[in-house]
Amino acid sequence: MFEFTITATDGSARCGRFVTPHGAVDTPAFMPVGTAGSVKGVTPDQLRGTGTRIILANTYHLCLRPTAEVVRDLGGLHRFMGWDGPILTDSGGYQVFSLAEINEVNDDGVAFRSHVDGAPVWLDPLIATRTQNDLGADVIMAFDQCPPLPADGRVIQQAVERTLRWAARCQEAHTRTDQALFGIVQGGLDVDLRRRCAEQLIRLGFDGYAVGGLSVGEAFEEMVAVLGPTAASLPADRPRYLMGVGLPRDILAAVRAGIDLFDCVLPTRNGRNAAAFTPGGPLKMRNERHRRDPEPIQADCDCTTCERFSRGYIRHLFNAGEMLGPTLTSIHNLRFFQRFMDRLRTLIRAGRLHAIVEEYPIAAAPTPD
Amino acid sequence: MFEFTITATDGSARCGRFVTPHGAVDTPAFMPVGTAGSVKGVTPDQLRGTGTRIILANTYHLCLRPTAEVVRDLGGLHRFMGWDGPILTDSGGYQVFSLAEINEVNDDGVAFRSHVDGAPVWLDPLIATRTQNDLGADVIMAFDQCPPLPADGRVIQQAVERTLRWAARCQEAHTRTDQALFGIVQGGLDVDLRRRCAEQLIRLGFDGYAVGGLSVGEAFEEMVAVLGPTAASLPADRPRYLMGVGLPRDILAAVRAGIDLFDCVLPTRNGRNAAAFTPGGPLKMRNERHRRDPEPIQADCDCTTCERFSRGYIRHLFNAGEMLGPTLTSIHNLRFFQRFMDRLRTLIRAGRLHAIVEEYPIAAAPTPD
Repeated sequence: MFEFTITATDGSARCGRFVTPHGAVDTPAFMPVGTAGSVKGVTPDQLRGTGTRIILANTYHLCLRPTAEVVRDLGGLHRFMGWDGPILTDSGGYQVFSLAEINEVNDDGVAFRSHVDGAPVWLDPLIATRTQNDLGADVIMAFDQCPPLPADGRVIQQAVERTLRWAARCQEAHTRTDQALFGIVQGGLDVDLRRRCAEQLIRLGFDGYAVGGLSVGEAFEEMVAVLGPTAASLPADRPRYLMGVGLPRDILAAVRAGIDLFDCVLPTRNGRNAAAFTPGGPLKMRNERHRRDPEPIQADCDCTTCERFSRGYIRHLFNAGEMLGPTLTSIHNLRFFQRFMDRLRTLIRAGRLHAIVEEYPIAAAPTPD
Repeated sequence: MFEFTITATDGSARCGRFVTPHGAVDTPAFMPVGTAGSVKGVTPDQLRGTGTRIILANTYHLCLRPTAEVVRDLGGLHRFMGWDGPILTDSGGYQVFSLAEINEVNDDGVAFRSHVDGAPVWLDPLIATRTQNDLGADVIMAFDQCPPLPADGRVIQQAVERTLRWAARCQEAHTRTDQALFGIVQGGLDVDLRRRCAEQLIRLGFDGYAVGGLSVGEAFEEMVAVLGPTAASLPADRPRYLMGVGLPRDILAAVRAGIDLFDCVLPTRNGRNAAAFTPGGPLKMRNERHRRDPEPIQADCDCTTCERFSRGYIRHLFNAGEMLGPTLTSIHNLRFFQRFMDRLRTLIRAGRLHAIVEEYPIAAAPTPD
């Protein structure tokens, strides 16, 4: 039901084809984030039109509202969202530790308060897995502990131990053969710890492997330093997923390290905030200089926004508080990311990945949003 | 460049075909409102998908922001909005009198403060017409004075006199042959005054005639009582447009009186506020009872919302504050109005307009939103 085939390599970078019950995905692939069961501001048809083939949804948000039972009763996440392509759900671990008011963390799980109604909630490997079984995504994630960086060595060590213990429990709890379960490598910036975590996960044996706990406060160079050896320690014949990353520069560095899957809220979050991605850097769409500009956001972009609307119009939409401003800019940004990924795949196949920074200067520089 | 042909009648109700430089429109027709150059929350493609063939934009809003000069410099309203079908702009008169802080009204025009930045603005027949020439809609409206009801007889009388004087000035100022200019009948609930106003406008000679100053505070029965004789006093061979109306019940009554064109913000405003139109009455989409409901908003609706999304999902979107909730519900509501108009046209052609209230009970009853 799941297959992953490497189709080309360029150094450590690779192109692959990941087959799931809801279709195949060419990798490296970028997954837009549908936090609460909707990629904000765009319909499934518009999303598909951006070249998106796989999306991510957040278990933490969905299990609080409308609850996994409601999603299950409404036919599962694909039917609920009206998206018939592949979906990946995270386990809720990252959100619990970054968003919720935590009451207690112990070796069994986490007690926290719902950000929706303040109700006490308990989440553990069994519940996170059953919840994801109910949601019904094609790929589900093991429940992990993700400490923000910088963190004390003991905190990182303890998080790795818990993540490994919980990964085994998730594996035992997982019941659906039509869902792939990915394990998550933690270990902060400690390369040896990352390698040991990866080894233990490989011993358990997962359908794919994620690198978690990066892009959580460390410098770009620190992330890159740990990513190379970590990716290299993972099985070559399984998909590798770098969670929550990121900017074009981060994605490029990770693809070079051999990562296959990415997710990030930036295309839609920046789109809602009037920041449009272009190969040279971001455009602030509220800026006065766009007032009479008849040009599209990006001259050579083939998205439905750039095909029809001017910078002047989009600036007006944001200034007038029209919903269409965020929607049109999000569509462009999503297409920008999907074209970037498409170009990465094409260059890997040609053994010319090094050429990407000429076409996308944004991929060589940090991008303030 | 403009043609209007009556193709069928049923009592005073009529079907027609209104040809404009940007395409033909079957009447009776409903125009969604793109206040600030955007029908809120829907793209032009989505709008066309609802069966919409002609839309309205508000001169008042556009002349304040981004200004008519900017719209003109960006290629005119069609290009600005990315809508290549017919567009009608109102003259700004109604909005000035209902939205703005008025400083002075005299026989020449109106001085008011911009709701955007508080700047003083002067609007008169010449400026309203030149502004609409710049915006470039297919149909533009004469600048009128529209008093809210109930109003003193002298106020109504004065408004009619000004409206007539201003209509003549608009006609003189109007320069573009690719834009039709419609005159507006005022006169409150005074049938004789309405008739005299219509006669004077007909003497001037316009491409079409609008009935203004209704649905502004009076009872439904009062509106119907004045609408019949007013419509009957207008030339049969010109389009008749009832401004700012309305609910299905209002539209039906007006179609029976011989009106051809309508505009109203309700499909999108109610859509943003989680109220969905159905033939039997409105559905409040936030309601708890939709929580696990797998049915679409309306079982026999062919809109892209009803084809793919459940009431349970749409309820979730509103509860989670997702932009897609307003968008999907607006799309359904727009399609609801366009199907209603389509059904009216079909029944007029068959001489069976009386059957509409069985199919759409909402058309027989006042609809609280």
